[in-house]
Amino acid sequence: MAVKQGKHSLIMQKPISVVSYAAVGSKKESEGPLANNFDILNADSTFGEDSWEKAESTMQKIAVKKALEKGSYTEKDIDYICAGDLLNQCISSTYGLRDLGIQFIGLYGACSTMAESIGVASIFIESSAAKRCAAVTSSHFCSAERQFRFPLEYGGQRPPTAQWTATASGSVILEEKNEPPYIRAVTFGTIEDLGIKDANNMGAAMAPAAAMTLKRFFKDTKTTPDNYDMIFTGDLGKVGAQLLCELLQRDNIKLSQDKNYTDCGLMLYDLNTQDVHAGASGCGCSASVLCSTILPQMKEKKLNDVLFIATGALMSTTSAQQGESIPSVAHLIYISNSFNS
Amino acid sequence: MAVKQGKHSLIMQKPISVVSYAAVGSKKESEGPLANNFDILNADSTFGEDSWEKAESTMQKIAVKKALEKGSYTEKDIDYICAGDLLNQCISSTYGLRDLGIQFIGLYGACSTMAESIGVASIFIESSAAKRCAAVTSSHFCSAERQFRFPLEYGGQRPPTAQWTATASGSVILEEKNEPPYIRAVTFGTIEDLGIKDANNMGAAMAPAAAMTLKRFFKDTKTTPDNYDMIFTGDLGKVGAQLLCELLQRDNIKLSQDKNYTDCGLMLYDLNTQDVHAGASGCGCSASVLCSTILPQMKEKKLNDVLFIATGALMSTTSAQQGESIPSVAHLIYISNSFNS
Repeated sequence: MAVKQGKHSLIMQKPISVVSYAAVGSKKESEGPLANNFDILNADSTFGEDSWEKAESTMQKIAVKKALEKGSYTEKDIDYICAGDLLNQCISSTYGLRDLGIQFIGLYGACSTMAESIGVASIFIESSAAKRCAAVTSSHFCSAERQFRFPLEYGGQRPPTAQWTATASGSVILEEKNEPPYIRAVTFGTIEDLGIKDANNMGAAMAPAAAMTLKRFFKDTKTTPDNYDMIFTGDLGKVGAQLLCELLQRDNIKLSQDKNYTDCGLMLYDLNTQDVHAGASGCGCSASVLCSTILPQMKEKKLNDVLFIATGALMSTTSAQQGESIPSVAHLIYISNSFNS
Repeated sequence: MAVKQGKHSLIMQKPISVVSYAAVGSKKESEGPLANNFDILNADSTFGEDSWEKAESTMQKIAVKKALEKGSYTEKDIDYICAGDLLNQCISSTYGLRDLGIQFIGLYGACSTMAESIGVASIFIESSAAKRCAAVTSSHFCSAERQFRFPLEYGGQRPPTAQWTATASGSVILEEKNEPPYIRAVTFGTIEDLGIKDANNMGAAMAPAAAMTLKRFFKDTKTTPDNYDMIFTGDLGKVGAQLLCELLQRDNIKLSQDKNYTDCGLMLYDLNTQDVHAGASGCGCSASVLCSTILPQMKEKKLNDVLFIATGALMSTTSAQQGESIPSVAHLIYISNSFNS
């Protein structure tokens, strides 16, 4: 049974353990600072397929299969898989997962999907609907670029605020078990839209959603950033991460990149040498950083209390072309090595 | 606490009451056999907006607001809204619902979304994460047609197996309350794909998913079609509904359109006079039939035990152009006027 705390947050009453996880990336990820943390890095970003969309599907399936294998599970051990991605009609997930035969909860949260899927999976376990759930998402630079921006061959220029869609996938397996780390709390976000229209500045569009969800979580739980070892946002990048700190400052919440706050979009690539401008983005960014780096560091007790806030920009090329602003959402997961209900 | 029954089904232990619902349609729906059952029918399918996508967003918001109003609720009374739609990146939902300030669970299940959203909302209430949830989805002929098929102005010919995307939305409000009808059980589907590639024959692509989910539910609950007053599939249309009966016959499950089975896609329009070929389709089809006709008939005790199985085709134009077959999923909701945990 999940217990509501404050107005917006849910505290898990069961020990919802992250029993397995896996991260998959490709060439650019293999050249970044987290390369050594990934389970699988395939320099061939086609993953053996004949289209970028199929490549992303295959990569997502590989991430799920690796997480199953690392936990000594098979598909039959998983009650539900919560999944989604950025492609139109979420075809990375539907085609990637169709052979697995797992009951399918399709989600759409754009780049917030990793936190959303973990949140929904946790509620399923809390309700006893599921014993064990998988959560997965992915993004692929080449499928995203041609869907959202330009054909790859066009070689469009990118402004400094633009981010680089990660070719990566992350998958976790959750179950009720006395084995840290645990999903301790979830704060699902509301849709926020402060009127940003620049599709090359997703960080600015998403920062208000992250600020709102964090503010609510701190208020609901009567905690401050100092209560956590690290706070990770999803893919706000350089611009959005800075804006988030400024927005929270207005409410006297001190979040600082010099202390215990960073963004997954600033971790995956080297911003000085990898030509990614404001950082990494895409569902696969926060998912792969979580599964390659954050969760392993929790397992090693280098980190014990972590907030993971994935943010999603809820627009499409159609809405952008129609002059609409960019609504966004941020879902928060509190992960801890200690559990006391 | 949801109790698993058999391998795939969940029995609700709380009285999850459908406390309010509303259906919105447009001109073609106002000319169909269910016209009198709708809450709102707007002959202007732009809903006052300057694009079809914005029209769909507005229609979806109207459906939610109407369901709130009929139940004497405001947005503040709703803990979570579970929503999704057919448009790329689900912009009907994200733009339609952004002003409501309700914590947002974005879903993608194509035309299975109404059953998926009710299922997820029910689990949220079972887990005590939510006291009260909304579920909503929509489709719009004009936004779907130009996204999935041809520009409206092109006036493409449609084969007899094609269906007509409903311009409609349905929304329900669920809460724990001793007031029938109740969501008694949910069977979430797995992704099924028997290799159908004809995007003009969605019924054939989706029938196997409906058959699989129904088969599992009957097995899990040790019931047969005779145990229910009516069984409604989502939008299989004429071709898919017939195929479903044939598929189930192989397992000796007798489902018959001459008895207690029909499809929402066969109810919304008059197939003889409204030129819709094999029937209605789209997320809004089953959602609006549920909220305009099925739930009111349950309230009036004309129906007491109903299975509602919404089916979704999980493809995109990209996957179709790449020669892929059409995976599909079907989620089942058992709605009953009686509750005994």
